Amino acid sequence: MTVTRSRTVEALLTALSHDLPGDCLSTGPEATAPYAADRSGSRPLGEPWAVVHAANPEHVRTTLRHAHALRVPVVPRGAGTGLSGGANAGTGTVVLDLSRMNRILDLDPHDQIAVVEPGVVTAELDRAAGEFGLRYAPDPASAAISTVGGNIATNAGGLRCAKYGVTRDAVLGLDVVLADGTPMRTGRRTVKGVTGYDLTALLTGSEGTLGVITAATLRLRPVPETTATVAAYFDTFAEGAEAVSALTAARLEPSMAELLDGPVLAAVDDAQGTDLRSRGGALLLLQCDGRAAGTEAELGAQVLRGRATSVETTDDPAEADRLLTARRLALPALERLGRVLIEDIAVPRSQLAAAVREITAIAQRHDVRIFTLAHAADGNLHPILVLDPDTPVIPDAAWQAAGDIFTAALRLGGTLTGEHGVGALKRRWLVDELGPEQYALQQRIKAAFDPHHILNPGKAL
Amino acid sequence: MTVTRSRTVEALLTALSHDLPGDCLSTGPEATAPYAADRSGSRPLGEPWAVVHAANPEHVRTTLRHAHALRVPVVPRGAGTGLSGGANAGTGTVVLDLSRMNRILDLDPHDQIAVVEPGVVTAELDRAAGEFGLRYAPDPASAAISTVGGNIATNAGGLRCAKYGVTRDAVLGLDVVLADGTPMRTGRRTVKGVTGYDLTALLTGSEGTLGVITAATLRLRPVPETTATVAAYFDTFAEGAEAVSALTAARLEPSMAELLDGPVLAAVDDAQGTDLRSRGGALLLLQCDGRAAGTEAELGAQVLRGRATSVETTDDPAEADRLLTARRLALPALERLGRVLIEDIAVPRSQLAAAVREITAIAQRHDVRIFTLAHAADGNLHPILVLDPDTPVIPDAAWQAAGDIFTAALRLGGTLTGEHGVGALKRRWLVDELGPEQYALQQRIKAAFDPHHILNPGKAL
Repeated sequence: MTVTRSRTVEALLTALSHDLPGDCLSTGPEATAPYAADRSGSRPLGEPWAVVHAANPEHVRTTLRHAHALRVPVVPRGAGTGLSGGANAGTGTVVLDLSRMNRILDLDPHDQIAVVEPGVVTAELDRAAGEFGLRYAPDPASAAISTVGGNIATNAGGLRCAKYGVTRDAVLGLDVVLADGTPMRTGRRTVKGVTGYDLTALLTGSEGTLGVITAATLRLRPVPETTATVAAYFDTFAEGAEAVSALTAARLEPSMAELLDGPVLAAVDDAQGTDLRSRGGALLLLQCDGRAAGTEAELGAQVLRGRATSVETTDDPAEADRLLTARRLALPALERLGRVLIEDIAVPRSQLAAAVREITAIAQRHDVRIFTLAHAADGNLHPILVLDPDTPVIPDAAWQAAGDIFTAALRLGGTLTGEHGVGALKRRWLVDELGPEQYALQQRIKAAFDPHHILNPGKAL
Repeated sequence: MTVTRSRTVEALLTALSHDLPGDCLSTGPEATAPYAADRSGSRPLGEPWAVVHAANPEHVRTTLRHAHALRVPVVPRGAGTGLSGGANAGTGTVVLDLSRMNRILDLDPHDQIAVVEPGVVTAELDRAAGEFGLRYAPDPASAAISTVGGNIATNAGGLRCAKYGVTRDAVLGLDVVLADGTPMRTGRRTVKGVTGYDLTALLTGSEGTLGVITAATLRLRPVPETTATVAAYFDTFAEGAEAVSALTAARLEPSMAELLDGPVLAAVDDAQGTDLRSRGGALLLLQCDGRAAGTEAELGAQVLRGRATSVETTDDPAEADRLLTARRLALPALERLGRVLIEDIAVPRSQLAAAVREITAIAQRHDVRIFTLAHAADGNLHPILVLDPDTPVIPDAAWQAAGDIFTAALRLGGTLTGEHGVGALKRRWLVDELGPEQYALQQRIKAAFDPHHILNPGKAL
């Protein structure tokens, strides 16, 4: 078995070293080990056989054509910042690294559209759009390090989703290479369009299992004239969650509503020398944008005042940045404390406080440390399990807690992945959410794209 | 051939009359003829063999289970208001009429979600949501007569799309029955969620070829506090189109920008006794909404003033309704003049004026009458061919003009269907837009859902 696979892989490496420039192919464990895992904290067995550093779509086509013919699994990879093991690549796989394809091919301020290669770092696109008073509205917390291709592969959410939608809502069209090396263009450069099945939406969030993205046509939107920020502290996280429900009931549509629990605030304080935890057991950061941002933020503050222990409002961007720093530094602050396992459930917005109470009970039941932050305006919670930093494998109690969190999310009418994808980590629970009929149908769709099942096997579908 | 088909259909009718309540099944040409065509102006050959008036999902399952086993084509149908022949059903087909499934099953103001049956009239849902200060944001011009199920089947656009998205952006989840009668639930009740392939998006716009919708979970949004309306007249339609591009360049995001050409204004005048045509060769109706609506409308008016012959602004809803009436009555006004063939191209927003010039040239070249209106903010144009009312078949010149319009749209970077779907009318051009590889892949996806190809054959895919 090992011999057969090895011969197949040798045939592939021979073909690739013949057909690709020398600097596009890395082999040997030292070179490939850094490409074995993403940022999820999980690791596959072994290292990939090889890494192809594609510099253009032709390299992608060549790699897939040979891999398809020889039935060798290929794992597409952007910056490797994923949090679900979607880019994990162990023994027997070839990694297709797209990070060198990092050009902005077109940025059209008249059509408010950008065409980019998959390896463009998300914040770079946003910065380039900013020169025309535009922005790429999805704002993943990882924007400074993640790539557009990875954002599309996971249909990444972010801080501004409740008002502006997730990555899918900004993707108008895709250039992809199918599993057998065939290039295909989906979608359009127009705002609207409904010709045929929406393969652009189907590919978005497919985690590299249906095709490899070589370019994306993205919608840009005007940068709002004004942004106003509210910081509100609460005694408990559940009270903060209930306050966000009250904002929804008041029919406010904030562009951001980030909620952090007390343990997260304490971790940020430890890492940054701030003094947030002493001010409350939870912090809600609310932003409103547009020409009425100040009015809307004041309305939000009125709703919060009866519920929070303190409420501050600002329309000074520097002051807002200072407030947002706590949120942006939350994950690195937790990573200092131990090995993190980041969950990513979404629940109906009215169930946010109920989900918080469930998570607290689950942490006590399994005696694990869970820190929680939430994109509260769209009901997306990140319970983050922090494990012993020296633990070599994820302990059973952590898996059980994760399973209980997913079960609770489904019971509350929610979903087990809000924005990070299924990847390798959550695959065991996938059929629980989809049900057997939909799971079987999704497998048939996978086969329609990738009959030999070479694209990122063992992830998502 | 006819005998074989007839025996198969007899077997199906026997099974359906045994398994369905008597009032759910209509047969005979008098009863079925009204279900042969939609509002597109096209007609199939003959009438459907039978019409099933489904009252619940079980009736849908029963119908599909038998039709699948006997390989009889089934054409799902809502209100029959489609404009592309997507619900056309000729000899040999059975129509699955969903208009009796018209209940709003749930309307949750806390989660801002509605769960509805497919036969709910879109305006009814919007009215029900309005009791909670919410609305169903997609606003097809046909909202008063079309159903939610039909809107989803075509991924209908509407007047507020540029700011609030199309139907797809409001659909969170679907209950569908697959071709073989298997029920399946896709999507979620949460704002975010990315578990598995996005079948909700794939089914939206699939024109009844992948499954039959029995319920939809829809996102509602708050009704804006204020709406402000601007009416601007231009000498020519192209000048109006250029003015809309100038609004985009000024980074305004209107909730509506409807543009009507001079011949449409004259037709409305004839039908309604108004006096619009004398005021200009084109009318732009612009709306801004939200707490800064007045400010934004004034900014829009400033951009327009140098370009338009007259500009009027109002934040009085009654006055705005009066202005919008011209737009809403445009199609009925044209239907008085002859048999209409409604095209539905979308182009990049910067190409709107170029598309208008192409359409004018095409009308002259083929000597056909073309009236044009546009959802200008998202580049969606409706060139409407008005033919002799007594013409029994669509003349070659009209088909050639339609073909030239599609070719022009593709050349300008656009798409041949903006919001009405492909249906029966535009199927001959589908492969031109998709290309052979994507067309083949879409057929494999179709086969994954509907292996016997019974669902709405001859439409879309």
